[in-house]
Amino acid sequence: MSLPFHPHEGDPVPPALRGFARAHADLVELSESPAYLVARQRHPDRRVGLVSGGGSGHEPMHAGFVGAGMLDAVAPGKVFASPHNAQVLGASRAAAGPDGVLHVVKNYTGDRINFGIASERLRFEGVDVRRVLVDDDLATESDETATGRRGTGATVVVEKILGGAADAGLGLDELAELGTRVAGASRSLAVAARAQTSPHTGMPAFELGPYELEYGVGIHGERAQKSITRPSTEDLVDRMLDELTAALPGDGERVLAVVNGLGGTTGLELYGLHDLVSDGLERRGLAIAGRLVGTFVPALDMAGFSLTLTRVTDEWLSWWSAPSDTPAFPRKEIR
Amino acid sequence: MSLPFHPHEGDPVPPALRGFARAHADLVELSESPAYLVARQRHPDRRVGLVSGGGSGHEPMHAGFVGAGMLDAVAPGKVFASPHNAQVLGASRAAAGPDGVLHVVKNYTGDRINFGIASERLRFEGVDVRRVLVDDDLATESDETATGRRGTGATVVVEKILGGAADAGLGLDELAELGTRVAGASRSLAVAARAQTSPHTGMPAFELGPYELEYGVGIHGERAQKSITRPSTEDLVDRMLDELTAALPGDGERVLAVVNGLGGTTGLELYGLHDLVSDGLERRGLAIAGRLVGTFVPALDMAGFSLTLTRVTDEWLSWWSAPSDTPAFPRKEIR
Repeated sequence: MSLPFHPHEGDPVPPALRGFARAHADLVELSESPAYLVARQRHPDRRVGLVSGGGSGHEPMHAGFVGAGMLDAVAPGKVFASPHNAQVLGASRAAAGPDGVLHVVKNYTGDRINFGIASERLRFEGVDVRRVLVDDDLATESDETATGRRGTGATVVVEKILGGAADAGLGLDELAELGTRVAGASRSLAVAARAQTSPHTGMPAFELGPYELEYGVGIHGERAQKSITRPSTEDLVDRMLDELTAALPGDGERVLAVVNGLGGTTGLELYGLHDLVSDGLERRGLAIAGRLVGTFVPALDMAGFSLTLTRVTDEWLSWWSAPSDTPAFPRKEIR
Repeated sequence: MSLPFHPHEGDPVPPALRGFARAHADLVELSESPAYLVARQRHPDRRVGLVSGGGSGHEPMHAGFVGAGMLDAVAPGKVFASPHNAQVLGASRAAAGPDGVLHVVKNYTGDRINFGIASERLRFEGVDVRRVLVDDDLATESDETATGRRGTGATVVVEKILGGAADAGLGLDELAELGTRVAGASRSLAVAARAQTSPHTGMPAFELGPYELEYGVGIHGERAQKSITRPSTEDLVDRMLDELTAALPGDGERVLAVVNGLGGTTGLELYGLHDLVSDGLERRGLAIAGRLVGTFVPALDMAGFSLTLTRVTDEWLSWWSAPSDTPAFPRKEIR
């Protein structure tokens, strides 16, 4: 068994990458072995190649963010699995700019290891490499584990702001510091009412009753620390905003807000949530300086959503709003 | 019960419209009563207002298609229900150009009636009105009913091509004829592996076993004429392409292909399907002159997909690729 419309046999990722490259042939080029995607265009002032990647099953992340103004290359792993370091190496070689390569890595052990191995090989080849670690998931904040918070919805914010800044000609160290600051100024929380379909069994990856809610769910089907009785959507958003705003570092009044679908959640729900989030942030004295509503960082077909807040500066906003031309991030989607 | 993240009480559509208008305030303006959305910009050469609408639950259709280069206004009904004629009337008054208004109507009885009533009132007010009926759903073709084929995925093709043509300055009669020809050159087929969640019960709208497939499903939860044992995805695409290409009127070799998710189907699946569709059309001697892959005309959170083929001319392609700036159809999504 698998997802309903996966190929009959074999890994669903390679045909999906081919189908993606065929749909967006003017924007991206596919290397099949090792598998990575490279942007066809880059801004003439960009000195650093921006490279990301991670497990598949979160589309449009990351493949949909490859193109002018955002990522120069990505390494897509198997479903919910880190890319092989040879993929990261290939993507980085293809993307390297005169000032080197910046890796944007979500905080998972496998991703850290494989991007790390590729970095060492790149340095051995004389390519300068730095890393930005995205670790925004509030639900995994704990003093008890060394792993730290997971990387989730803020990835899209970090990657877009870095893309704008790279096109403005910032150098490798500046971009690494910027990305780390944007990730540090971001927090996310996710909830699910229905698990994603397991690609292995074709059944829901875990069972939830009709009034249960997984509060603080991960994007790989990691269960949350707690299942709660589903509150009203209004109360749920209030609770999430309370926790997010309490945890958000800094004290500026302006935020970027991302209302992100986890795969099986409708546009009708996401825009209704955005209305609640807008009211809730206003009531808390925060001004939404940029917004993104849609399915950008899903967990296959999970029914759920995440909220991401990033406290922003004017400079970050200018990079957030800068032109881009990628499959999932055409310029006009970004405000 | 309702969908998991709908408001606790009341119609989910009004808050979603507010959340949509807040997210895209630079592109669209919302009238709340009667409810309709109007584009903030239009091409200076456009002489005809393009107006569409229909039941909600199919987002991004139609609200996401409002903006420069596409629709001038839309009337969104309740979930899976026709808009009230007062909404169509308001949208049409707001959108009317010097040459009048063109209604793009999916072929459902309620939509036909309500757009029809609004047309009569507009004519009484001295506004010239024509209608394009979209009726592409091959599964509902029958000599036994007077209703005819339903309108589904081809709506996005008709609306984008009409948008480009309207910006080229075509008049009302020319646009009405063009839209009718595009709709007539389009056929769609849809399948589902899991029903959408019923907004009334919060449960799947109908039950399907793990190996069952609804073949020829509608976008409002209408069951198909047949449930079949799920074939391999490869065999399924072959069967759908056989039926679509056999039914497609005309004899040109160039087609637009839309691989559309019905809501709960992942990007990984849709791009894998696109790879199969691309190979399958090539084997049948057809050239894909334009493509669209993504969730554009869903049925809430149904797990399924539709394929739409439109036999195209060079002129239609130029309008398909013309610039647009709408929430779901920024220019660069279109090729």
